[in-house]
Formats: sequence, structure tokens, C-alpha cells
Amino acid sequence: MPLNPEQKSEIEALRAAKSETRRATVAALEEILYEALPVLDHGFVRVIDYMGDDAAVVQAARVSYGRGTKRVSEDAGLINYLMRHRHTTPFEMCEIKYHVKLPIFVARQWIRHRTANVNEYSARYSILDKEFYIPAPAQLAAQSRANRQGRGDVLEGKEAAQVLAWLREDAERNYAHYAEMLNENEAGEPADTNRQGLARELARMNLTLNTYTQWYWKIDLFNLMHFLSLRADAHAQYEIRVYAEAMLETLKRWVPMTYEAFMRYRMGGVALSREGLAVVRRMIAGETVAREGTGLSAREWRELMQSLGRDA
Amino acid sequence: MPLNPEQKSEIEALRAAKSETRRATVAALEEILYEALPVLDHGFVRVIDYMGDDAAVVQAARVSYGRGTKRVSEDAGLINYLMRHRHTTPFEMCEIKYHVKLPIFVARQWIRHRTANVNEYSARYSILDKEFYIPAPAQLAAQSRANRQGRGDVLEGKEAAQVLAWLREDAERNYAHYAEMLNENEAGEPADTNRQGLARELARMNLTLNTYTQWYWKIDLFNLMHFLSLRADAHAQYEIRVYAEAMLETLKRWVPMTYEAFMRYRMGGVALSREGLAVVRRMIAGETVAREGTGLSAREWRELMQSLGRDA
Amino acid sequence: MPLNPEQKSEIEALRAAKSETRRATVAALEEILYEALPVLDHGFVRVIDYMGDDAAVVQAARVSYGRGTKRVSEDAGLINYLMRHRHTTPFEMCEIKYHVKLPIFVARQWIRHRTANVNEYSARYSILDKEFYIPAPAQLAAQSRANRQGRGDVLEGKEAAQVLAWLREDAERNYAHYAEMLNENEAGEPADTNRQGLARELARMNLTLNTYTQWYWKIDLFNLMHFLSLRADAHAQYEIRVYAEAMLETLKRWVPMTYEAFMRYRMGGVALSREGLAVVRRMIAGETVAREGTGLSAREWRELMQSLGRDA
Amino acid sequence: MPLNPEQKSEIEALRAAKSETRRATVAALEEILYEALPVLDHGFVRVIDYMGDDAAVVQAARVSYGRGTKRVSEDAGLINYLMRHRHTTPFEMCEIKYHVKLPIFVARQWIRHRTANVNEYSARYSILDKEFYIPAPAQLAAQSRANRQGRGDVLEGKEAAQVLAWLREDAERNYAHYAEMLNENEAGEPADTNRQGLARELARMNLTLNTYTQWYWKIDLFNLMHFLSLRADAHAQYEIRVYAEAMLETLKRWVPMTYEAFMRYRMGGVALSREGLAVVRRMIAGETVAREGTGLSAREWRELMQSLGRDA
Repeated sequence: MPLNPEQKSEIEALRAAKSETRRATVAALEEILYEALPVLDHGFVRVIDYMGDDAAVVQAARVSYGRGTKRVSEDAGLINYLMRHRHTTPFEMCEIKYHVKLPIFVARQWIRHRTANVNEYSARYSILDKEFYIPAPAQLAAQSRANRQGRGDVLEGKEAAQVLAWLREDAERNYAHYAEMLNENEAGEPADTNRQGLARELARMNLTLNTYTQWYWKIDLFNLMHFLSLRADAHAQYEIRVYAEAMLETLKRWVPMTYEAFMRYRMGGVALSREGLAVVRRMIAGETVAREGTGLSAREWRELMQSLGRDA
Repeated sequence: MPLNPEQKSEIEALRAAKSETRRATVAALEEILYEALPVLDHGFVRVIDYMGDDAAVVQAARVSYGRGTKRVSEDAGLINYLMRHRHTTPFEMCEIKYHVKLPIFVARQWIRHRTANVNEYSARYSILDKEFYIPAPAQLAAQSRANRQGRGDVLEGKEAAQVLAWLREDAERNYAHYAEMLNENEAGEPADTNRQGLARELARMNLTLNTYTQWYWKIDLFNLMHFLSLRADAHAQYEIRVYAEAMLETLKRWVPMTYEAFMRYRMGGVALSREGLAVVRRMIAGETVAREGTGLSAREWRELMQSLGRDA
Repeated sequence: MPLNPEQKSEIEALRAAKSETRRATVAALEEILYEALPVLDHGFVRVIDYMGDDAAVVQAARVSYGRGTKRVSEDAGLINYLMRHRHTTPFEMCEIKYHVKLPIFVARQWIRHRTANVNEYSARYSILDKEFYIPAPAQLAAQSRANRQGRGDVLEGKEAAQVLAWLREDAERNYAHYAEMLNENEAGEPADTNRQGLARELARMNLTLNTYTQWYWKIDLFNLMHFLSLRADAHAQYEIRVYAEAMLETLKRWVPMTYEAFMRYRMGGVALSREGLAVVRRMIAGETVAREGTGLSAREWRELMQSLGRDA
Repeated sequence: MPLNPEQKSEIEALRAAKSETRRATVAALEEILYEALPVLDHGFVRVIDYMGDDAAVVQAARVSYGRGTKRVSEDAGLINYLMRHRHTTPFEMCEIKYHVKLPIFVARQWIRHRTANVNEYSARYSILDKEFYIPAPAQLAAQSRANRQGRGDVLEGKEAAQVLAWLREDAERNYAHYAEMLNENEAGEPADTNRQGLARELARMNLTLNTYTQWYWKIDLFNLMHFLSLRADAHAQYEIRVYAEAMLETLKRWVPMTYEAFMRYRMGGVALSREGLAVVRRMIAGETVAREGTGLSAREWRELMQSLGRDA
């Protein structure tokens, strides 16, 4: 479990303290506020704070003086309408803040989403913990032969054992050298007084990319959904997708109507190209369509047939 | 006063409803939550929601598990340090949402700050209220002769009266024609059933730029301070400065430590150029410095001497 | 025509001057560089500068040392792939800069796209020209009764004449008062030396929203396409759509492969919701589907049937 | 030198091809276009493309039809004015694109600037080269004892030798295991046909943070200067500062007037706090000021005295 006793007690203290507020409050999200939802072997996602709820989306869309809510069914209808017609600004009126612990190679992919605010734990000022991501055996996949960006079969036997051994040994050795180069004891004093110790901002370069880092990450509801639509997608790398899946659960607690509209119009929907639409129209008219002459590439054709639940 | 009875009662209902929350809460800001702070003749600023407090800035800077707070004096010191060294990301971890009613020409200036989220009342879908900004006599300033962007003396007598008459009459006539072109009664039905009524998205073009509009405006603490440093500045146009001043008061209630650091390092500070710094060094050394040879323009020299409290 | 002789000769001078460059250059766009493409009655769009071409998208996607181009067909295939899978960053590597003259109410809608850089002609410092947008008779549409945001039939006869008269007279009267309040002659001196003249930053508030303004507007290729997909859409207001259509032509000249992919996957495509996809699957299977039980609203159903080329 | 013969010849081909353009062109920057300016042991910065020049800043500030330029002295004066008064939008009208090769730990710091466009070489799709950053002996600094974020004395003798050995050996061993886990020969086929090879997206996690990566990085002139003001600063980590310094030289070639204003008002200038300004005023009045009672912390006092060229 990723938390030490001191961290646990800090979190418990936060959870125990309650205040009165006039702000919109979401009970289902308050239930898990500050809690560490475990992800991968040492990572987590924690909701630290939030602003707004489904009604705030409605309120902003109506630029109203009060809560903006009419009847529940009307609110859901308006939210569906906004999602369908890509009216993004009302969803930008809600905000959520997470504390995330994640391997550096995942963080590098994640940070490419520029529309969030980030404070990362600094290895220039501080010393990183000795924690690395080692894939579970079921995740130790071969390179896909069909697809340059994907995974193939799971490695087994000797090859799998060798990979796991290298990942673990190399991370541990490099961390041990990192610690020796730093030459700091727990009080921040030189461990070996005959040496100076390398600057933290330099020593960190010896760490491996599976070392865990952590950050505060704050984003508005619209951009969160954009992030999730890319990272909870089946094509996303497993190691980031599991974070996105944990966050999908927090979305569902926070703004259930928006979540439902998101599943309906984004996650569960599909985009047809002009050429793909032409194929669909012909199929609906009862025609048996072959790929030739449709203007679709073999891969597009396969993806379209999959979407339509047909054999490609 | 800008609110009608229905709006007032909606606001009262919001203020009366209280919930329990585990989130960081700021009592001084809760006190005025949802209240309309009057600005200009028909405008207002209302704080609608907020996320975070001074401790959240500290918490983010430390990437901590708990509140992040140590002793109050240490927190204030850290916030001063962050402000001084322009570490902007911890301040981005707090967020505030306003409902603002403002003249269109002010809205046009305001919207140039792109780092906020905005939902404006739409004159494409809805009908704007009959409310215009008419300057108070003390604000009816002549064009500055010294400065292309500034105001000179206040207009008086017949000239002032004529200006006020035109502003009022033109706004009212144009609004009356707007309403006639729309041809809608309160129920949204044709007022005159012999006419169709012009589309709202077209009729609005007859309105004057002093017509009031309104929007929801959400921004993080860092970008709010950037906005305020420009718009609460003495060089900002009066009609936007009064909004910034009202918002400065909400900043003070919300995050008092950050507010103090902001006044200390931004609003009350001054930027010296390389050449200005050279002049200051010579003056401190006891030299009587003349502008010639300093590389400063006449205007820069005047501004520098003003900052230093010297006659230019 | 919107340009005076001095402006025309400035543009001719720019067009006549040619330099040698090592940068990627697009002949079809150079042909119209700096030219004013007319839009509405007094507006225009001018391409002022650009950076990159189709090959720069490919080059960025490959992070290559040279141009990045392989065979033309491979480049087009890669661009299609990037567009289909929403890999946005390679398209952000190209940039274009426009000079646009447009009515203020259009500018207010346009500016909501925050991902561009803008320099607007300032009515705080300068005096706006006496030019207003007056709709052509064919554009003088009634409010749609079916749709709160749309246009219905064109106004005719007396009602149309009255609307046009008001729009013209109100704009002219307000501009005349604006000019009188300013009290400046062409040299910037008081026209009437017995009066001071109102500050420009105040006088502008008397202008109507159909007054023309102008700005420099710079945007990257990805965000330009996002803007065009919303504003060249059939649901966009006519007065902004005509600008988007003029810009679509510049896109076609600039990056023909990207343009083709954009038409294929964005403008000509359609997004199906989870429920809409289920309907399509049933229709392809030969079923006659009725709306009841599909989970689609009446409006969604109508839109879906339209996309599929079926009677709703 | 970081380039192989194939890369060199690709660059030479780009440099040799010249086109005619109507766009603003900067000869001094064209001279070095596409060239790799070496940074650190294996890194570089290459200018790949640019848009605009000093005159484009002036043109945007004036929203002019032609080039915007008046006399050179007036243009420089306007640019100084814009820089001094923080009118940022005209500087956003110019754009530059770099190709940069840099160690991953530097890339992680760099990417925190979110206002740029980035395409990074993907270790999910491709295989990284075997190149690591090893500090030169003069850069092998100890942790500063005075300052948590700084460097102290240079390590020497056995300690330095040990650090260099670890950095090199650990990077090489981890890279060797990375290559073995991938199990790909140059043709992308299995090197050992008895094994599958680990997916690239997984194998990369074994690499150390001093491994080189590369990206295309595009930014506007305003945000470039903001980046440089932070990263060319004496407090920036040496390993990123050397990149900023190389880019400063490209800035000087590209927009010499803007560069001069930048050095004058940003790099060479200093920000005084309200309290610091009060101290300066007293010193100019001839007073001998002690820190007590000024409201300045010991560190602020030291920094202020340094700025003023006085002993602290």
C-alpha cells in the first residue's frame, strides 16, 4: 500500500475536519475526499478538492442568478444538449484537484495535456522515495507485430523472468547509487563526512523512468473529460489507462448527469468520416458494400466494420 | 440597484442553504458569497464559488499529503517567497468564480484576458435588458492632451450636459428600435401579429456599446492577480478599474496572506530597467544625476523620478 | 470596396517586395498574400504571414532532421491518420496570421476562441472609421419559431424597409454624435476650440454593435481547423460563417493535404452517440427502427435521420 | 558532435534549397537556419522556421495595412514602450520553431512551460538512441549548503571519479538491457528469434533520466522571452541554462530591436518590492539604512543590496 503511517494520519485528520459552507456540495464525492485510490503497484489518485456540480453547469449555461436548476429531467436534457453540440464553456465552470502518484514515464505522457495546473514534487529540491513500477506478469507484453504502438502477447517463462529481474535490479542499483551520490542522512547532513555529496539536481539523472513521482493536478471538467476520452480509451497505454479509469469513477460520483452524457456522446460514440458515412448509408439501403471504391483504407474499413458490429 | 425582486430572492435562497463539507472553507469569503457588490450605475460583481485558500497554496508548493500548513509565520514566509520568485504554479491551485454585470465596451476589454473561463449571456438566444451605463458627471472626462490613452479635465456646463443627453437618448432610442424589431411580448409571442420580428442574432447589432451584458467568469488565483495588477492599476480605464477594485476586496477576504504578498511585491512594487537601476546606484552613491547620458527617455525619467519620490 | 487608395498602395508595395528564403514556402498562398478578400459589405480577410506547410506537419510527426517528406501518397496517408486519430500536435506546428475587418458583434463571437493571438485596433487610443454593417435584404431574417438560435423566413415589404432604415439611421446618428463628442479634426486638434472634447475611451460607448473594427489574428493550424469546424458549420450565424468560408479557401491554398483530410474527417463527417450507433446497427441489420425505445430525443432522432439521408 | 552523416546531409539539403517569398524575411537568422548549435555533450538547438520580425511587432501594435514601420528610431521606441508597459500581444505575433535534443531530466523541466507547441520523439513507437548526458568535470557540483536548490563547490578527486563512473556505467548497463529486452535488429526484426521482445512502451522505463530525447518546439516571441527570462537566469539549473543561452543568440539574430529591449527591461532590470522601494528612497535621501524595521527578510535584504551594488 503506498502510504506510510504519517501520511495516513494526515489524511485521516483532513477527513475528520468538517466545515459549514454555502457552496454547492456533492455528498458522493465528499465520501471519498482525500482518500488514496490505489493504482498500479505503488501509485494512487486522491481527490483533494472540487468546485461545482451538475447544477453549476446548468447555472453557467443559463447565466442565472440562482442555482440554475429547473427540474432534474430538464437539467439532464440541457446537459445532454450541451455535450452533443460541443458547447464546452459551461463544463469549464467546474474544477477538480487531484494528488497523483505515478511512474515518471507515465508522468511524461500525462503532462502533454497542457490545459491543467500542475505542481510536481521537485527532485531538484527534495529526494525521491525508493519506489519503482514493476509490471505485473499479466502486463508484461511483447511488442505488437501488427501495430507499432501496441502490445502483443504476454511474455512467459525465461524471457519474462529475465525482463522482471532487469527492471528490478537496474532500478534498485541506480537508486542505491543515487543515494550514495547524494550522501545525505535523514537529517539532511552528510552521511559520510569525508565527502561532499552531489547536488540533488544532478544526482536525479541516474534514476530510471519507472521511479515514482507525484503531483497536484487541477483541471476543469471539460478538459478532464477530454483527457479521459483519450486516456481511458482502449488504445491508450495500460499504465496510464488505469489512472484514467480510477478518475472515471470519481467523475461519476462528482457529476452523475455529466458522466452519463459523457458515456453516451463521447466514450460510447463513434465518429464517421464523410466516406464512412457514405458506406453506412449504402448499407442501410440494403446494399452489400465492399471496400473497393469507398475511399477507405484497409485499416479504416476494419475499424468501421468493428464499430458497426460486422465482420471485416 | 441592479437586482429585481426575483433575483434577490434567488440569491437569498442560495445564501440560506448551508451544507457540511470536508473541503477547505474560508469564513470571510462565505460571508459575502452570492451577494451582488455594486459597481458603476447598474453593474455588479458576485462571488459564486471558490476552491482553496492560502493553505492550499502552501500545500501545493510542498506537494503534501495533509493541509501543508506549518506555523502561520512559516506559511506567510513561503507565500512571500513564491510571490517574490514568481513561482506561479502553487497560486494556480486555487480557483474563484464570479458573476459580473458590466457594459459591453468594458466586457470587450476584459475578455482580452484569455486565461479565464467565460459564459456570457447570449444576445443570440435571449433578449438583453434595457440598461445602459451613463457616466457620473465626475467621470465625464476630456481627452488628455499629454497622453493619447488618458483622460484630462472633467467636462462641465453645456458640453457635459450635451454629452450626457446624447449618451442617454441614443442608447434609449436604439434600444426602443431593438425591441420593436424583435416584436416579442413577454411570453415570447409576436407583439404585433402582422409582423414577423427580426431574428435576435441580427437585432442586437442596433444596441450601443454601453448596454449592459453579464457573464460567469472563472479564473485561478495566479491569473486573477495578473488581471488585477493590470486592471486595478492607475493607468487602467476607470470603468474597468472599479470592477478590479471590488474584486481586490474579495481577494483580501479569500486569501489574506496571498493578498498581502500581492500588495507587497506587485501592486506596491516597481520594475527598474537596466538603465534605471544604473541611475539608482549613482544616486545612492550620492551623485546628482541628470537625464542626459542615462539612456532614459524623458518619459521614463519622469516615471522613475516619480517612483523614487523625487521631482522630475 | 473596403480599402482606400493609401491602403491599396501599401498592400501593393508589400506584394511587390520579394526576398529569398530557406523556409518552406507555399506558392498558392503567396499568390494571394496581403490581398483583401472581401466579406460582407465592408469587411475583409487578408493573409498577412504564414509558417509551415503540409510537409511541416509530417516533419513534426516524425521529429525528423530534414523535411520529413517521403512520397506524396505516404505524406497524405500520414496526415489522414493524424486527423483520424486526433493527433493534434503536428498540426500545431504550422501558423497563419490574418488581418480581419469585421462588425463588432461578430468580433465578440469570434474572440471567444481563446487559442489565438489578437491585436485589435483600439478605440481607446484611436478613432474608429464610419463604417457599419447593414445586412443585404436576403439576410434580413425573422426569428426562427422552431429554434431559439436560428433564423426563419426573410422579412419583406414594409417590415424589411423599416428595419433597414432603423439600422442605418441609428448607426449614422450615433456615429455623428460620437464624432461631435470627440471634437477632433483630422489633425487631432479641437474642431471647435470652445469645447474640450470627450475622451476617446468614453465616446466610443455611443457606437452601435454593427460598427466595423479590425484586428490581427494569428492561430496555429490545429486551432484554425477547430474554429472553422464550428464557424463554417451550417448552424453558425451567417455573419461569421462568411468569414469562415473565406478562410476555408485560404486553408485549401496553404495546406491542400490537410484541407482534404479536414473535409473528410471533420466537415463532412458525423458523430454518432452510443444510442445513435445502436440504431444504425439495427438499421444495417435490416430492421425498421422507430424512435420509441431508442433513448434518442425527437430532435436527436431527426438529426440522425438527416445524417443518414432518411426521412425523419 | 551530435549528428550522423545522414542527418548532416539532410540538413545541408534544406540549407541549399532557396525559394522566393513575399513574407518578412530576416537575413541574419536565415544564415543559421536548420544548423545544429551544439549544447552540452550530445545536445543541440536548431532553428527550423520562423514567422515575423521586429517590423511585425510594430505592424501588429499599429494594426496597419502595410509593414507598419516608420523610421527605425520610432520603431525601436515603440518596441521599448511595449516592453516597458508589458503590452504583450504585439510580441505574440511572431513565432519561432526549434528542433532540440536534450536530456530527459532537462526536458521534464522545460515542458512545464505550457504555452508552446511540442512534438516529442516517441519512445512508445520508436527506439531511443544510445546517448546520455555525462556532466563535464567542472559541472560536477556538490549540493549547496546555503541554498536547497543550488550548487556548491565542484567535486574533486575520488568522489568525482566515482560519480562519473556510476553515471556512465548505470546509463550504459540500463541501455544495454533496454536493447536486449526490445530484441530488435536494425530491420525491426527479432534479433533472437527464440524470444518475442518486450513492447517498446514498456522497455523504455528502464532508461535513465540522462538519456537524450528530442522534440520540435514552437513558441511565440512573447512566451519565448518569458521562457528565456526564467531559464537564462543565474538561478536556473546549468543544464537548461545553456540551452537558453544558445536560444538568446538566435533571438538576437531574429529580432535585434526586441532583443535589445528585452535585455534592457527584463534580463538587466530588477523588481523592487514596496518595502525595497522604501529602502531605496531612504538611501537616495542620504540615510544609512539598516535592515531592522524595513520589513525585509535577511535574504531579501541581501538580494536587494546585491542589486544596488552594495555590500550586504
